[in-house]
Formats: sequence, structure tokens, C-alpha cells
Amino acid sequence: MRIFGIDPGSERTGYGCVETDGRLARLVLCGAISVPAAAPFPQRLAHIHRELVTLLHGCTPDCVAIETLFHAANVRSALKLGHARGVAVLAAVEAGCSIVEYTPAEVKRAVVGYGRAEKHQVQQMIKLLLGLAKPPAPHDAADALAVAICHLHSLPPPSSRIPSGTRIPGPGSRAAAAKPRSWRQYRPPTIG
Amino acid sequence: MRIFGIDPGSERTGYGCVETDGRLARLVLCGAISVPAAAPFPQRLAHIHRELVTLLHGCTPDCVAIETLFHAANVRSALKLGHARGVAVLAAVEAGCSIVEYTPAEVKRAVVGYGRAEKHQVQQMIKLLLGLAKPPAPHDAADALAVAICHLHSLPPPSSRIPSGTRIPGPGSRAAAAKPRSWRQYRPPTIG
Repeated sequence: MRIFGIDPGSERTGYGCVETDGRLARLVLCGAISVPAAAPFPQRLAHIHRELVTLLHGCTPDCVAIETLFHAANVRSALKLGHARGVAVLAAVEAGCSIVEYTPAEVKRAVVGYGRAEKHQVQQMIKLLLGLAKPPAPHDAADALAVAICHLHSLPPPSSRIPSGTRIPGPGSRAAAAKPRSWRQYRPPTIG
Repeated sequence: MRIFGIDPGSERTGYGCVETDGRLARLVLCGAISVPAAAPFPQRLAHIHRELVTLLHGCTPDCVAIETLFHAANVRSALKLGHARGVAVLAAVEAGCSIVEYTPAEVKRAVVGYGRAEKHQVQQMIKLLLGLAKPPAPHDAADALAVAICHLHSLPPPSSRIPSGTRIPGPGSRAAAAKPRSWRQYRPPTIG
């Protein structure tokens, strides 16, 4: 089972793919798609879309997990973020993946056990959960891995997906195994 | 010279293509891409993108003009609209078109002569400017044609693009020939 997490942004889009054998979670790859700030916005969107299409083609995930947002600093930044998220969702549909979405608070609760956790806490927990030598960087990549792991935790049986010996801080993460709702759980139409 | 206008929306995306010989503006086609309200959001985005790709391939416009928005009812609706607009912009980039954008007020000023014109006034002016038998419907199609015509009016020499005998109400439309700014005027990168 492979899950590809996306943390969309108009300037930097984080991505991270994890896979599990039903017992251990393992990092497949992670990183961030950066676009030169000087590039025209349409070109940025096309770049994000193209890079994600290539990554999804290479990773062949079963599912794409993506952060959702109901809040933004203002309407203008919400519109901008919506553009980037739109082309990210499109790339996932085109790759024939199921799509699930979780709010940032759900992701933090599932990974750190606390919905208002700081970015460095998320990075540290990702390092722990995936048995990495150092926390994933940049933080966009960690955020993308976090949303992928959040979905991993929501799958039955959740207990078998935590590496043995890893202690989950607080009662949050397992109790908070968030369930994606409405279009938040999108399955590609079957053919025939 | 062919201009393809888009009025993006997550439930209905209007489109309209006009062409000019430098003197008269002529309707090529117009309509609206509707998506069943019950369809999951990712599927809607993919549908909008796919339809626009097909239309742009058929129309081979020189330029895509698209409505911009800095205001929305709230952040949530701005995010939703941003998704739809994102895949529309992507379709235009993929078609190798230049992209220009105008605010709704600029479009109304250029077409009706008044930045707060009502939808039916826009429809009536489109009918007049393109010499149609009846106003284009639905209003999303008229709005898409309006943004295309707005760009037409901004091209030099603007006076030659109005059908002879058509009176422009008020001093607005020609005076207000809006100039697209910053990424609002995107040209595809040249190869080689």
C-alpha cells in the first residue's frame, strides 16, 4: 500500500510518498517542487502540475492524500492557493488515484497527537515514525509526509502500521485517526 | 485574431470565442461546461480541464482572456473557485496560448461602459457587438464572451474593432480599454 501526500502551495508544493507492508511504514521519497518566484503564475501552475504528473507516474501510489484548507489569510491568498491545489488534484485524478483530504489540524493530531503542533514537532515525529536519520526537509516535504501518514493511521487496523518500539506521544494520534468525508474521499470511476 | 474567453466556476464554466479581421468582431462559439452537482469535486475539475483542452484544441485561439477575482463571498468559496480557475489556466498554458486577465469591473466597463452593469445588460451588449439574433445564454457564456471582447477592445487600434453602426453607450468602453498587468499578460515561452 503506497500513499502519496501533497502539501500544495503556489510557491512551493511539498510531496512525500510512504509505503507500508501492513506493519511498518517506510519512506519512498519526499521533496518539494519549487518554482522561481519571478515566473509568471500560469507557468508556475503548469510546472507544479507537470512535476506531480511525473512523480505520480514514478511512484504509482494507491492513494493521494492532500491537505485541505478552509482558512487562509485572506480571499486573495485563498484564490492563489486554490489554483495550486486545483492543478495538484487534477494531477492525482489523471494518475487514476483515489484522493482523500484532511485538515491541517487532523494531520497534526494524527501525527503529533496535538492539533496545534509546531512545524518542527511534525518534522521530528515524521523522523521517528519513518525511522529516518534526520527530520525530512524542507518543512513542506514533512507536511506532505504527515498527511500521507495521517491517512495511513486512518486505515484499519491502525495499530499495525506504527513501527514497533515507536511511542506515540499522548492519546491523540490513534484516537484522532481522522475519517475523510464527502468528496474528501474520491475514488476514480471504474471502467466498464 | 481569435480570442477565447473563460468565465471559470466550480459548477459552471462559461466559454466564448470571438475572432476579428481587424474591423468586425464575429462569434466563433460559446457555451458553458456544466458538471453534475453530485459529482465529486476532483472529477468536476478533471471535467472542466478536459472540456477546455478539447475546445482550445478546436478553436486554436491566439489568446485566452480570463476573468480574475480578488473578491469572493468568503475564503471557502474563493478556494473552490481558485481550483476551477487553476485548471482553466492550466488548459490555456497547455494549449500554448497567451493568457490575459481582467477584473469583472474592467470587463463590464469595456463592454457596457459601466463597471457595475447587470448581467442582462452585458448579455444585450454582447448581442449588439457581435450582431447576434438573440443574447447569448447562459449568462456564463455571455460573461466569457465579454472578457474576450474586453481584450479585443484593449488591442490597438481599438476603434476598428467595433462593428460599424454600433454605438457604444457612454464614454466608458473605449476610454476604459483595460491594460492587462503583470502575470495578467502571460506569453508562453518560445522554444530555441
